[in-house]
Amino acid sequence: MSASAPQPPAAIELWFDFSSVYSYLSVMRIETIAQSCGVRVQWKPFLLGPIFKTFGWTTSPFLLQPQKGAYMWRDVERQCGKYGLPWRRPRDFPVRTLLATRVALLAADEPWAGRFCRRIMRMIFAEERNVDAPEAVGEALGELTADAAALLAAARLEEAKGRLREQTEAARASGVFGAPTFFVGREMFWGNDRLEDALAFATRAAG
Amino acid sequence: MSASAPQPPAAIELWFDFSSVYSYLSVMRIETIAQSCGVRVQWKPFLLGPIFKTFGWTTSPFLLQPQKGAYMWRDVERQCGKYGLPWRRPRDFPVRTLLATRVALLAADEPWAGRFCRRIMRMIFAEERNVDAPEAVGEALGELTADAAALLAAARLEEAKGRLREQTEAARASGVFGAPTFFVGREMFWGNDRLEDALAFATRAAG
Repeated sequence: MSASAPQPPAAIELWFDFSSVYSYLSVMRIETIAQSCGVRVQWKPFLLGPIFKTFGWTTSPFLLQPQKGAYMWRDVERQCGKYGLPWRRPRDFPVRTLLATRVALLAADEPWAGRFCRRIMRMIFAEERNVDAPEAVGEALGELTADAAALLAAARLEEAKGRLREQTEAARASGVFGAPTFFVGREMFWGNDRLEDALAFATRAAG
Repeated sequence: MSASAPQPPAAIELWFDFSSVYSYLSVMRIETIAQSCGVRVQWKPFLLGPIFKTFGWTTSPFLLQPQKGAYMWRDVERQCGKYGLPWRRPRDFPVRTLLATRVALLAADEPWAGRFCRRIMRMIFAEERNVDAPEAVGEALGELTADAAALLAAARLEEAKGRLREQTEAARASGVFGAPTFFVGREMFWGNDRLEDALAFATRAAG
């Protein structure tokens, strides 16, 4: 159609957990592909742990099911090869990511949110860094913002903790059961393998 | 490389359960794609139920986790649209498929094994037929073999039941925890989303 009214830009929500291995793949890939099809990314960090607890799980399903865990490590290595992403298996799993997650939530609407999230993910899954430490998170914030210290301080306040709890509850209430999860409007797509489908849906939905 | 010694044809094993929704997608898709890249398909029907029991699960994870189940039905509908496959959600789930599975195992090396498996899958996921009934399985065997009656009779013997138990135990021992699962040699790929990766691996492995 030509000469139609201007449409609002298509948007895709990426709900992710920094300690989720398949979230790593999507966080690293989404912005480049989304930009190439004119879709805006909305960054939605949350915590899988409290959602797993509602299923009666005490930890990652990759630990509760050793066969699935063993497969996952091999699979993600192959997927990183396919996508050209760096990869080094974290020594400890699940990884502690609370501070980085609170900072990511506070900064989610910043134009540099994607760059920050990719830096954190690279620290976790390629550099074996501890992103629950203020030094590492401060380094990831680097030259992205002049307010790194203020942001780190804000991330430790009760308000930031409450916001992350609310964000996680919003994920659960929307039917999120794993990560990464994409939403295009109310349409939900689960897993890095659905990134392209979700973006195609966003492009079609925007007409 | 030219003038190299002839290689044995590349092969891919498809381990599937007739009552597995994502197995439906792979059973319907695999032979066409595999043929186009010169890879031979080996049909490996088995039962997920006994493997789920070893995880302490009493039924399908899609029933144990209602959020995941609700998502799965929407996802598979979208995937069928993407692949151009017929789809009608079965009224009862999980579906009873024991007789069809035993017949598929007895016929797994027949040149018409793929056609039989696709017919059964179509009955389950597009036509709401009961494939635990001899009439339906006999109809699926149709003109594929002159021995339909003998095959149906053999499928009810203790030997056929034992073979399916052994096949399922072989799956478990190989690390299979879900379906579909592909093996190329000892390399394992889980899920319909990995079909193309597994075939690419088979093609590379065959040189």
